Amino acid sequence: MRKILVIGSGKSSSYLIKYFLDKSDSENLHITIGDISTENAKKLIGQHKNANAIRLDVFDKESRSEAIKNSDIVVSMLPARFHIEVAKDCIKFGKNMVTASYVSKEMQALDASAKNKGLIFMNEIGVDPGIDHMSAMQVIDRIRDKGGEIILFESFTGGLVAPESDNNLWNYKFTWNPRNVVVAGQGGAAKFLQEGTYKYIPYNRLFRRTEFLEVEGYGRFEGYANRDSLKYQHAYGLDDAKTLYRGTMRRVGFSRAWQMFVILGMTDDSYTIDDSENMSYRDFVNAFLPYSPTDSVELKFRHQLKIDQDDIVWEKLEELDIFSATKMVGLKKATPAQVLQKILMDSWTLDADDKDMIVMYHKFGYKLDGKKYQIDATMVSIGEDQTYTAMAKTVGLPVAIATLDILNEKITTPGVQIPITKEVYEPILKELEEYGIEFHEKEVPYLGYNPLSN
Amino acid sequence: MRKILVIGSGKSSSYLIKYFLDKSDSENLHITIGDISTENAKKLIGQHKNANAIRLDVFDKESRSEAIKNSDIVVSMLPARFHIEVAKDCIKFGKNMVTASYVSKEMQALDASAKNKGLIFMNEIGVDPGIDHMSAMQVIDRIRDKGGEIILFESFTGGLVAPESDNNLWNYKFTWNPRNVVVAGQGGAAKFLQEGTYKYIPYNRLFRRTEFLEVEGYGRFEGYANRDSLKYQHAYGLDDAKTLYRGTMRRVGFSRAWQMFVILGMTDDSYTIDDSENMSYRDFVNAFLPYSPTDSVELKFRHQLKIDQDDIVWEKLEELDIFSATKMVGLKKATPAQVLQKILMDSWTLDADDKDMIVMYHKFGYKLDGKKYQIDATMVSIGEDQTYTAMAKTVGLPVAIATLDILNEKITTPGVQIPITKEVYEPILKELEEYGIEFHEKEVPYLGYNPLSN
Repeated sequence: MRKILVIGSGKSSSYLIKYFLDKSDSENLHITIGDISTENAKKLIGQHKNANAIRLDVFDKESRSEAIKNSDIVVSMLPARFHIEVAKDCIKFGKNMVTASYVSKEMQALDASAKNKGLIFMNEIGVDPGIDHMSAMQVIDRIRDKGGEIILFESFTGGLVAPESDNNLWNYKFTWNPRNVVVAGQGGAAKFLQEGTYKYIPYNRLFRRTEFLEVEGYGRFEGYANRDSLKYQHAYGLDDAKTLYRGTMRRVGFSRAWQMFVILGMTDDSYTIDDSENMSYRDFVNAFLPYSPTDSVELKFRHQLKIDQDDIVWEKLEELDIFSATKMVGLKKATPAQVLQKILMDSWTLDADDKDMIVMYHKFGYKLDGKKYQIDATMVSIGEDQTYTAMAKTVGLPVAIATLDILNEKITTPGVQIPITKEVYEPILKELEEYGIEFHEKEVPYLGYNPLSN
Repeated sequence: MRKILVIGSGKSSSYLIKYFLDKSDSENLHITIGDISTENAKKLIGQHKNANAIRLDVFDKESRSEAIKNSDIVVSMLPARFHIEVAKDCIKFGKNMVTASYVSKEMQALDASAKNKGLIFMNEIGVDPGIDHMSAMQVIDRIRDKGGEIILFESFTGGLVAPESDNNLWNYKFTWNPRNVVVAGQGGAAKFLQEGTYKYIPYNRLFRRTEFLEVEGYGRFEGYANRDSLKYQHAYGLDDAKTLYRGTMRRVGFSRAWQMFVILGMTDDSYTIDDSENMSYRDFVNAFLPYSPTDSVELKFRHQLKIDQDDIVWEKLEELDIFSATKMVGLKKATPAQVLQKILMDSWTLDADDKDMIVMYHKFGYKLDGKKYQIDATMVSIGEDQTYTAMAKTVGLPVAIATLDILNEKITTPGVQIPITKEVYEPILKELEEYGIEFHEKEVPYLGYNPLSN
């Protein structure tokens, strides 16, 4: 039996573990799931004969080393900051490793040691980052192979609620970590490249500089810019591209409404509010509005943000019951972002039978024989239920397939890496299609960056 | 002779040094001015027999200690971060010390040692902080002495251009460190108290939540909130006050125009712009606007900020020549804030015969015998020229007077302190009147915090 150690069995591990279990007989696999609490792991493996769950505290050196030493390959599904101790043990005991997380500086620093020992440390092989890398590089390499030159690359991903469960005015529910949604876009200006010019958007304008995207069969979406659209410029070989833009997808109208919270300061996570515990939702809103002995919180809100009587954003606010004088915040020493998250969770938590959805949209502009072309590629994945979510599927399956491909020596190049080489993305994207994760490509007229949509 | 050591002879030391020189015979003073460059010091002391300038590098332990050991009292006019080594030497050699800077944690930590040695470490005794503390506490103590209870305290200070030199559309010129003006208000939400409710304003709204202030003989001003209006709540004994607000004064209309830079992200000091060196002013502006193959930077600017054709803010922009395609930034790896500062300095630098102005406005609301009252107090100081500025006068004179009062044992209470006790503010405010620095008080109807002005 080939022994796979999976560390961490949170929300995103359902499909990953199912994949391994389903292949365990044919591929001769034994799967050990290690977690600080084994409850979810036990639920996911049931009575399967080829798997077991063990209690594993990643900070307990002895048990961690022991588990890693006993495995043939290690998958870390822990939060990114916990990978490094696992990675060091993998170097020590000569084990390959797979994670869905961004390559940290500490991880990158292990590159020479990994290569030295012939070890593969595969990272960023979830959905975003992960499927975005692989699907983008597949098209980019194909265009290059026929002599084309990439001049534009835009890429958007969204974790959203599935159309059949989309029943609120925001067309949004939390399908992943709510906190990340509330603080999204903070920490510095978004930077990207449009037709050869660097562009910068400060946080206070981020949600007003969106562009629209149409996905066949799924309608319209909008995208707002990620912090750093140039992060993979060099890795993708796009040093000469004129337009580079990476963004996050929401349903149309989300961002314009979200902007109200940004402008009033309700997404701030840098300070705590006095006496937040005893505030009503209404008190919370009022803390960001001028004092008045007579005017209502509602009118002050409308006035500050110049919201017309018949603007739909107002109904979006009312749907959240954000002006309630009876619903209490009940959080001690909370930041504005924490209070807002709590208010949103009342409305945006998935119901038991709700499904989630992952959407991805790439645009590739290129020059070939003096002419300009564009390919748009889209992918949509819908969850089955609240265990087998689209998020868990699109994060877990690439991790699982990569793990097996490494065990089976389909992937052999050592070092700390991300999935941007043909050796990695070809077999994985091919197998993902069997699970319905596939991109639909469309040739469209090349318009360059289109300012009318901005 | 009593020996005063002044460390630092920058812009704010002219009146300070003149005060000492003028009193040197009658008060039996010898003044030594230490600075890393003695040029300005020599200019300020001329051939005066009771003063000398020495080269003093505050990081050179030996010469610093020597100079401090040889003095009877030390005045540090250095930037705040350089005080601490001087302060430690003052403890060591048993010297009193005076600075105009905020009390740092490191400075506060010396309180016990200072008290132990009977030393006075007077801080925050410039204009703001300084004259604001003294003038506010004088009125607060007076109200309390007659049995009143303070329920409202608002305090505003502005460093502006004098009316006779006020000849641009912004009614503003740099009279102090331009950088502080460009980054003002950044780093977290402004917090204050209005009628018993904590209020928070994020940076993106700070310059749109101003209030108007009228100073007799000088017309209208506006004030925007400082970061932390509650900083001195306890020190001033205002724990039960319902309204506490500290702000910065500008001429009316400045903030609404400044908001354009805030919204577009031009005041950001947290990242550098690619190729800033070779940008024109126009390129700089365009970096914060969407790409267009055809539309002008001007129209994109108007559209993004919804600026009407006949809005005066547009003329304010044009006055700065910010859309110039020929004026070059010429700064390597500059942050947006650094570029904006350079553009503004073209227009807002004082001419040789320009004068500056310091304006201060306090509001004191109080209850006495069941009735509510309000006193408004204002102070205006106008500079003489570009050496003897209002800023140098209002910063330097309180420092100088405090220094002499300590030498003459009018001020005797030891410890690290700020000028909020009668022992300190009474003699200093009285003497400041001789120099035209005086407050005009007016009884006005108590309206509480007035929302109509916000």
